[in-house]
Amino acid sequence: MDFAPSPRAQALLDRLTTFMERHVYPNERAYAEQIAASGDRHHRPQIVETLKQRAREEGLWNLFLPDPRHGPGLTNAEYAPLAGMMGRVVWASEVFNCSAPDTGNMEILAQFGTPAQQERWLRPLLEGRIRSGFSMTEPTAPGSDPTQLQTRAVRSGDGWVLTGRKWFTTGAMHASVFLVVAVSDPEAPRHRRVSLLLVPADAPGVRIVRSVPVLGHISSPGECEVAFEDVRVPAADLLGREGEGFAVAQARLGPGRIHHCMRAVGMADRAVELMARRAATRQVVGGPLAEKQMIQDFIARSRIEVEAARFLVLHAAWTMDTAGKKEAWPAISMAKVLAAQTACRVVDRAIQVHGGLGVTDDVPLAAMWRYARILRIGDGADEVHKAKLAEHELRRWR
Amino acid sequence: MDFAPSPRAQALLDRLTTFMERHVYPNERAYAEQIAASGDRHHRPQIVETLKQRAREEGLWNLFLPDPRHGPGLTNAEYAPLAGMMGRVVWASEVFNCSAPDTGNMEILAQFGTPAQQERWLRPLLEGRIRSGFSMTEPTAPGSDPTQLQTRAVRSGDGWVLTGRKWFTTGAMHASVFLVVAVSDPEAPRHRRVSLLLVPADAPGVRIVRSVPVLGHISSPGECEVAFEDVRVPAADLLGREGEGFAVAQARLGPGRIHHCMRAVGMADRAVELMARRAATRQVVGGPLAEKQMIQDFIARSRIEVEAARFLVLHAAWTMDTAGKKEAWPAISMAKVLAAQTACRVVDRAIQVHGGLGVTDDVPLAAMWRYARILRIGDGADEVHKAKLAEHELRRWR
Amino acid sequence: MDFAPSPRAQALLDRLTTFMERHVYPNERAYAEQIAASGDRHHRPQIVETLKQRAREEGLWNLFLPDPRHGPGLTNAEYAPLAGMMGRVVWASEVFNCSAPDTGNMEILAQFGTPAQQERWLRPLLEGRIRSGFSMTEPTAPGSDPTQLQTRAVRSGDGWVLTGRKWFTTGAMHASVFLVVAVSDPEAPRHRRVSLLLVPADAPGVRIVRSVPVLGHISSPGECEVAFEDVRVPAADLLGREGEGFAVAQARLGPGRIHHCMRAVGMADRAVELMARRAATRQVVGGPLAEKQMIQDFIARSRIEVEAARFLVLHAAWTMDTAGKKEAWPAISMAKVLAAQTACRVVDRAIQVHGGLGVTDDVPLAAMWRYARILRIGDGADEVHKAKLAEHELRRWR
Amino acid sequence: MDFAPSPRAQALLDRLTTFMERHVYPNERAYAEQIAASGDRHHRPQIVETLKQRAREEGLWNLFLPDPRHGPGLTNAEYAPLAGMMGRVVWASEVFNCSAPDTGNMEILAQFGTPAQQERWLRPLLEGRIRSGFSMTEPTAPGSDPTQLQTRAVRSGDGWVLTGRKWFTTGAMHASVFLVVAVSDPEAPRHRRVSLLLVPADAPGVRIVRSVPVLGHISSPGECEVAFEDVRVPAADLLGREGEGFAVAQARLGPGRIHHCMRAVGMADRAVELMARRAATRQVVGGPLAEKQMIQDFIARSRIEVEAARFLVLHAAWTMDTAGKKEAWPAISMAKVLAAQTACRVVDRAIQVHGGLGVTDDVPLAAMWRYARILRIGDGADEVHKAKLAEHELRRWR
Repeated sequence: MDFAPSPRAQALLDRLTTFMERHVYPNERAYAEQIAASGDRHHRPQIVETLKQRAREEGLWNLFLPDPRHGPGLTNAEYAPLAGMMGRVVWASEVFNCSAPDTGNMEILAQFGTPAQQERWLRPLLEGRIRSGFSMTEPTAPGSDPTQLQTRAVRSGDGWVLTGRKWFTTGAMHASVFLVVAVSDPEAPRHRRVSLLLVPADAPGVRIVRSVPVLGHISSPGECEVAFEDVRVPAADLLGREGEGFAVAQARLGPGRIHHCMRAVGMADRAVELMARRAATRQVVGGPLAEKQMIQDFIARSRIEVEAARFLVLHAAWTMDTAGKKEAWPAISMAKVLAAQTACRVVDRAIQVHGGLGVTDDVPLAAMWRYARILRIGDGADEVHKAKLAEHELRRWR
Repeated sequence: MDFAPSPRAQALLDRLTTFMERHVYPNERAYAEQIAASGDRHHRPQIVETLKQRAREEGLWNLFLPDPRHGPGLTNAEYAPLAGMMGRVVWASEVFNCSAPDTGNMEILAQFGTPAQQERWLRPLLEGRIRSGFSMTEPTAPGSDPTQLQTRAVRSGDGWVLTGRKWFTTGAMHASVFLVVAVSDPEAPRHRRVSLLLVPADAPGVRIVRSVPVLGHISSPGECEVAFEDVRVPAADLLGREGEGFAVAQARLGPGRIHHCMRAVGMADRAVELMARRAATRQVVGGPLAEKQMIQDFIARSRIEVEAARFLVLHAAWTMDTAGKKEAWPAISMAKVLAAQTACRVVDRAIQVHGGLGVTDDVPLAAMWRYARILRIGDGADEVHKAKLAEHELRRWR
Repeated sequence: MDFAPSPRAQALLDRLTTFMERHVYPNERAYAEQIAASGDRHHRPQIVETLKQRAREEGLWNLFLPDPRHGPGLTNAEYAPLAGMMGRVVWASEVFNCSAPDTGNMEILAQFGTPAQQERWLRPLLEGRIRSGFSMTEPTAPGSDPTQLQTRAVRSGDGWVLTGRKWFTTGAMHASVFLVVAVSDPEAPRHRRVSLLLVPADAPGVRIVRSVPVLGHISSPGECEVAFEDVRVPAADLLGREGEGFAVAQARLGPGRIHHCMRAVGMADRAVELMARRAATRQVVGGPLAEKQMIQDFIARSRIEVEAARFLVLHAAWTMDTAGKKEAWPAISMAKVLAAQTACRVVDRAIQVHGGLGVTDDVPLAAMWRYARILRIGDGADEVHKAKLAEHELRRWR
Repeated sequence: MDFAPSPRAQALLDRLTTFMERHVYPNERAYAEQIAASGDRHHRPQIVETLKQRAREEGLWNLFLPDPRHGPGLTNAEYAPLAGMMGRVVWASEVFNCSAPDTGNMEILAQFGTPAQQERWLRPLLEGRIRSGFSMTEPTAPGSDPTQLQTRAVRSGDGWVLTGRKWFTTGAMHASVFLVVAVSDPEAPRHRRVSLLLVPADAPGVRIVRSVPVLGHISSPGECEVAFEDVRVPAADLLGREGEGFAVAQARLGPGRIHHCMRAVGMADRAVELMARRAATRQVVGGPLAEKQMIQDFIARSRIEVEAARFLVLHAAWTMDTAGKKEAWPAISMAKVLAAQTACRVVDRAIQVHGGLGVTDDVPLAAMWRYARILRIGDGADEVHKAKLAEHELRRWR
């Protein structure tokens, strides 16, 4: 039993903390202003590119990849506090080339990609030169039921013709390539029905229908609806084996979920800081907000909830490392449900402590809240995870 | 003890229900599309003007005003279910000339305005020809502490010179006139310090600094930061007496709060409907969502909470009618806290039931959530109301 | 829309309030001491008999019965605030001959009893000379599924032989008669299977197995396990018609549930008072508890929740009066779920405000908490009501 | 970062698990029956003595003491899962001589006791031959404010005369000695005012006034009100130095709190098991309870909350081991608040899943609930801990 990070994790955390303090927090306003100044809500602010350059130079790069060929090769438990630190600013993960959906895409390209696929897509992703999208969800198919997917990949010559419409393709506005989950054999058994295809964003027939406003907001890289209309995909662009699309997609889900959880914990941790700072300085009738016990109650409960969620997430990461991604699923599901709900609750309290200011984009809370709220739905809604966890618990005692 | 609406309230409710079904719900998409098509997030969609015309013709107009000279002269308890019905669509109140902040502004113009002021501003407001803003909140002054207001009205000749910066001036983008709360005598006792001035939006020195993005969203009429820079205000544009700005502002607060509560209940009621409709039609593994007890739990708890909030709001309205606005404050505070929290919780569940769709603007839930979330801060944060209610309760038993 | 009680309800409420203040609250300690002194936890304290006598003399008697032949004939909406007032002390309802299960038993005896049955059982119950039990629940049959009842009434001669074991027969220790639900025809369709029999407590074969400790406590009249072993029941002791046991039992359920809700609201109301009184007098570091905002938060939230639950209960009572017991079921279910949960939450906070004292029987909070906690299970668990309410809501929108 | 217990902790845990399965769970009913059969609610059931004998023989004894002279000398982090295992049955800790208040008393006797005091009291306590009480709380003094203590120790000869009345002296019915906190110098500065005296239970003037019913229940060893009336205490019975009573009492608080937390987590863990077992076997309309999602929701949320609380408690134990008891206070406070609330919530759900059975003493849930509920008040109420935690958090960011 030891709660201390490993020495190399601690060393990286110290450097990352310094980087955040020197370069990221001071640029939060610049980030917002560069987007606002561009007049384009999908604008990629220059500050991100500048900071990426610097982070790469400092070796704070690709920290997420357990594969030691492509980075420091940290365990999930080692990476967890680092991802938490990055999560304190919603857009900071990209600075360290550790942002979704690229992280998950790199993981499966590294694990399942052919040398040619890795050369074409993995290498520039690892270098932060391009970004990518992951296209699975469809408007009419719940994520929990793959048998309802409509997007079809029909054999044609030695390749495929892809047709369908995807939704919530994160980062699509800036992506160079999409990893698309499509039904390749509707007659096959339930879990052998789909394949995963690599589709360049500029392939004929690929069309970004719209950037879907999420909770009233169009975020920079966009949550997009993407149409694939008779897109020709060569056989060489199949990622993994035919019919194994789910197995491949699954391989990115566990780490992906837990990365989101780590960020959510970091975000909630930052929200407690912002709450405390605001309370200490805001004067109301009778003194600073910090002296009001209702606010103290917010702060104390939030701190308790953040620490509890943190340890549940760390435990899930450690379980992935020691028992394997597959065996770790209940730990991951528990962490996912708690981290997202905790972040929602804590950020909500931070908004309340900030009063009117809290709902504006002058503070990062509204953006955090959006991230956390979506997390309660994405990667499996809370209810789906809870039903599976209950089943698991019931099996234990039968 | 009688929970049935009065016959005329019931008759108006029936007509309003029909109007919503025929003209408002079917145009929710048109409303969104007209704004999107304009490329301007502050665009006033034509559909609103069209529907206003029709509502006025049908006599569904100015229902909020208890003053029988300017409308049907309903009691608050009679108006409550009507406001609830309008609240089912976030932008619908304007269709019936019953939207904030115009409602509150009309109330105090009717009560405190000189004939000239009423002729110039009240009449076009009552006719729905212009809109207005209410400028009280400032970035550095909590709403709960008026002594911290910075905006100054300095005597000059027989008028005033107004200087200051206001925040959260709802509807400022489309307003023809601002009702501005300003310190007219900083040496006076606490509640005699401020006056209320009528300032045309096109007066020299009035400048809309920016439309403040609220929860990531810039709503159509805008929550604006407005600068008043050496604005000359003639003596005739003082609303109410000098030094009585708070008394006048107060007179619009009670009804204003309770109108928001009514709308919040209506909004939550609609969210239960949307939740139930979605659950009935969405297929997941094992059947429709409606058969999943976790969703049934959402629906049942939401219905219970909505009805409880509804009665608390109705009771507050009835108390205003029978005991007076002033005496009704504890009932209003209770209703305000519960209605806003209920709407937040219920809409949040409705979002969850809709999955990914729920966070998009393809359904009205995200917009409802914003309205409800802001309500927990505006018109006095929950915590301020609760502290006052506790004090009141403690006095009862001492 | 009118929230004021009727004049006669108000008059009775005033008199009842005075009675509580003069005779009940001052005797709470005597009640506890008389039980303690007797050394018998099922002891009936003399003070109850004394107060019953007085209440009857004052005409504060049988207020619950809508039937004007047996009391003032109040509507449910009129009775609700009176039951709430009685509920402020857990044992006070009996003082006014308004306590469960006698109330429900009197209702069905009045509605379904033969003249002979009314003479033998209803009259002494109305006069408060005897008490009664209601035996439906069985250890292995969930209340929600009558088809699992095991207790059998087998035809024998022109009467019945009753065999089975019942549980949670409230008040059995002091009962003179049991109303027993038994399967009279196991082959009949689901809702025609059971009959209701009147069984004297001293009939051969009736045995009180034990008083079941509930939440660690053996309350005065007892929640008992009762065995019926070859008990001969004459045909004349069938209450209602053969096979209609459920219909008869159902007729007492609606009012029974709502009476419990009214008491739960009164109890919670008292808990707010106790909380406020304690906060005002208890000194902690830095002043009285009342000045601590965490306590103010408890008080304010509790008051809001109590009022919301109160109106939901009143509305259910009014719906029973205006639409009928049967049509009112959704309103009753909603009230039942909310009132019980509210009472649990509010009493729990009152305990917390009292610190160590709060968990002792020196204050009435622990007894209240037991009542409220059981209410979340009895008369249909929260979950059963919620599932039915959701179904009802889903039907509305299909 | 390592969540696995140390090898010796794991070995002890395995043996303890076996002991619980073979000897404790099968005797839960015997324990209840032996108390019931005795007719004395304070009866010490023989089964406890039998099991103590066996546990001592197996070396599962005094596991709580970090001091290696008196047991295995486990760290707090090592002991935590063991205490959790014991906590699965509310009376099981005593079997292993690991129950409060003896544990804390042994800790301070070992740390501050003179050789003579250790010979007289520590040795028989370590051997499980006697039990002890800790008398600090008084009816009129909040635990959080020691300056309000009334019990006085007045110098007389070279000893003291002790006078006062204590409350919530756990285990007093069976105690051979009381550790009494008394004001020895009312003029001294705030934290030098009190001393700790060892008072034999049979000393003249010691009188157990009553066993205070807690949540309606008189537990076996009793929560007692104890009067000390002119009790003569020789100088040699002062524990620690004069005026240092708080420092000594404090030394038992940290570990005491965290032991309670560990047990609370174990208790909640057992409640999840009981909930799952009941759900799997109970048939309701439409199948077993386990298939109802509302019950699944209970189970899944409970499991998540238990694991989160578990890690927070483990972290606090680890912090005590690595940073010291004093530095660990925020971690302990956080664990204390969360563990008690979690146990309350989870046990409450388990009660609900059991329906009527859940509130009876036929299942151990009501007893667990009492333990957990009291824990939210004892050792510092939640609110006191939260206020301190908020202050701590606010200091971090100032």
